[in-house]
Amino acid sequence: MYNQTAFALGSNRSCIRELFEYGRRRAAVVGDENIFDYSLGNPSIPAPREVEQTIKDILADTDPVQIHGYTSAVGDLQTRVAIAEDLNRRYQAGVKPENLFMGCGAAPELVAVFRALAVPGAEILAIAPYFPEYKPFVEGAGATFKVVAPDVPDFQVNLSEVEKNLTENTVAIIVNSPNNPSGTVYTAETLTALAELLKKKSAQFGHPIYIVADEPYRELTYGGVETPFIPCIYPDTIVCYSYSKALSLPGERIGYIYVPENATDSGSLYAAVAGAARASGHVCAPSMWQKVIARCTHLRPDLQAYDRNRQALYDGLTDAGYETARPDGAFYLFVKAPGGDAKAFSDRAKEKDLLVVPGDDFGCPGYFRLCYCVSHDKILRSLPIFAALMEEYK
Amino acid sequence: MYNQTAFALGSNRSCIRELFEYGRRRAAVVGDENIFDYSLGNPSIPAPREVEQTIKDILADTDPVQIHGYTSAVGDLQTRVAIAEDLNRRYQAGVKPENLFMGCGAAPELVAVFRALAVPGAEILAIAPYFPEYKPFVEGAGATFKVVAPDVPDFQVNLSEVEKNLTENTVAIIVNSPNNPSGTVYTAETLTALAELLKKKSAQFGHPIYIVADEPYRELTYGGVETPFIPCIYPDTIVCYSYSKALSLPGERIGYIYVPENATDSGSLYAAVAGAARASGHVCAPSMWQKVIARCTHLRPDLQAYDRNRQALYDGLTDAGYETARPDGAFYLFVKAPGGDAKAFSDRAKEKDLLVVPGDDFGCPGYFRLCYCVSHDKILRSLPIFAALMEEYK
Repeated sequence: MYNQTAFALGSNRSCIRELFEYGRRRAAVVGDENIFDYSLGNPSIPAPREVEQTIKDILADTDPVQIHGYTSAVGDLQTRVAIAEDLNRRYQAGVKPENLFMGCGAAPELVAVFRALAVPGAEILAIAPYFPEYKPFVEGAGATFKVVAPDVPDFQVNLSEVEKNLTENTVAIIVNSPNNPSGTVYTAETLTALAELLKKKSAQFGHPIYIVADEPYRELTYGGVETPFIPCIYPDTIVCYSYSKALSLPGERIGYIYVPENATDSGSLYAAVAGAARASGHVCAPSMWQKVIARCTHLRPDLQAYDRNRQALYDGLTDAGYETARPDGAFYLFVKAPGGDAKAFSDRAKEKDLLVVPGDDFGCPGYFRLCYCVSHDKILRSLPIFAALMEEYK
Repeated sequence: MYNQTAFALGSNRSCIRELFEYGRRRAAVVGDENIFDYSLGNPSIPAPREVEQTIKDILADTDPVQIHGYTSAVGDLQTRVAIAEDLNRRYQAGVKPENLFMGCGAAPELVAVFRALAVPGAEILAIAPYFPEYKPFVEGAGATFKVVAPDVPDFQVNLSEVEKNLTENTVAIIVNSPNNPSGTVYTAETLTALAELLKKKSAQFGHPIYIVADEPYRELTYGGVETPFIPCIYPDTIVCYSYSKALSLPGERIGYIYVPENATDSGSLYAAVAGAARASGHVCAPSMWQKVIARCTHLRPDLQAYDRNRQALYDGLTDAGYETARPDGAFYLFVKAPGGDAKAFSDRAKEKDLLVVPGDDFGCPGYFRLCYCVSHDKILRSLPIFAALMEEYK
């Protein structure tokens, strides 16, 4: 007498979690310094120092009943004003506070948006490689989940594959850039071409096909690359943002949903998102964190540690003969598995205490993901092991 | 092209919110001191002082990457150990950390539990008067929502009305004590009799009928009354707890789900709850707050201010001829509307800048709810207005 789908989701751990927990057990045996765990995307740089000071300031200058009290479901006005100003300063995007809905991180925000878009028969597309939780989120919202084949080897967007999957029932396509797991940033050219295709198909089908932009990594780019702000390219875009990575606050569950004013049915869509959130038990985003964001939304993380890891790992792996897409963002590298079987490669790597996630769950077999939120020293010490593994395959 | 149920939920504000926002507008005209707003259940006493100090201690003694990092989906072990110890010290309940799941407040916890219990055809009962959001939560989870008629005038539980509503499809009954909106605490006698009935019917139907105990007000009782811990009376109870009221942290979204080890299918049910939470976008409960709870779960709020309000309001209203149930808990009074039409009474009260919520949305027409999270001075100044209103009805 319990829901079987929920039970299956709760009892089958993800492959990533399995690897991570294997790593913890193995570390207890061989020592943490001898486990090279590239499995989990848990930020390894601290929040900007100003965040801690801001918490102390708020505790000192604000009435505790107000700090910790309910905000309106859509979020504190001051917080939304601050976010709108920051976005407009950077992107001239015309964001108004009433287009923003404060949420508890990208995951529940995506669920609310998928539920808001879930008309009978609705289909929602993800572009491989994609974050595996999209599937339970979309299906839990009552829509059908469809996967667009990857654009190998650059991991931009394969437009003809998108077009093949667009039907009258398509209500949205998820765009996640910088991408988990590939680390690629979709270029303005890629996004403009995708927008053209979606406009054409929306006109043909007589209803909008929204982009749902999952953007926890928006601020994590390297080497001068910038993440285009998709609503400026395609107004029928709903942004799900999180401060998890941008302010290194992954456990605090704070972010926002942005429904552009010039999106089709903007006002009704915003109401549907709010209603879907309500039905999922959303009351408000954590209130003290909303007040922190009002003062800290403009801060950026110190990305040098990630960038150093990225370059060392990219250079080391390519020197050893591995093939990988250009990792311009997030904190992932997505690498072609020698021998072609990523699960077999992951198992062999595991024997050498090197934990890498096969790409199968990301809709992209034959590749493996590395999350480089680890110490730089470990990166350097792991490179000879990667090289030795490659030698075994030659 | 958006979900109509979600749109309706997002565009129809609740009656409580409407009144509250009318109050804010009206306050701008006549001055806040002249609006007697009993509409919204927003705690008016601050969090215990130790909470602020604990935040500062954590910022000083814990690595920021750990303070703000992801915890496991079920929550920090240390936090669950502290909660289990506190519950066992108070109730000898045999709670183990692995029976606890840290959640983001009672609302999403209830949604996860309802989804976990939502087998095809499932019916979930609420006992009138009940918190209005139960309906969208149950229906959003895919189950049928049924209402048990109230036990007038004591607002305990009318067992024959419960029995009438129990069918082979009943998977759970929601028990909310201390109750919103009535302020009554279900007695051990009431709960024991309910347990007997549910045991009998569970045996008859061949499957458990769970109690879902919604317990944000568990610690808010007055005059020596204590809230019985329902799992000690009926093991097939799933508790959804929140620190919103007990620590006056309503906006921070922190609580827990407790699935007793001796509940039927305990392990599978826990997994189904975890899976349902995952499909709703639960990643973890806010991480810093989990660490605060680990050190503060034993703290109790200073309830004197609420108690003073309760007594003044109860005495004043009954002296003026109003009839109300014994308000032993929470921060509500549920009062019989003079004239019998609570909506009409609420409208008439509104003309005198007295904001009271008609009971219709709580499944209990003919009564109105007062939330006494207001200043004591306002309570005293509102009593002559209540008395004058009653005079008009005589």
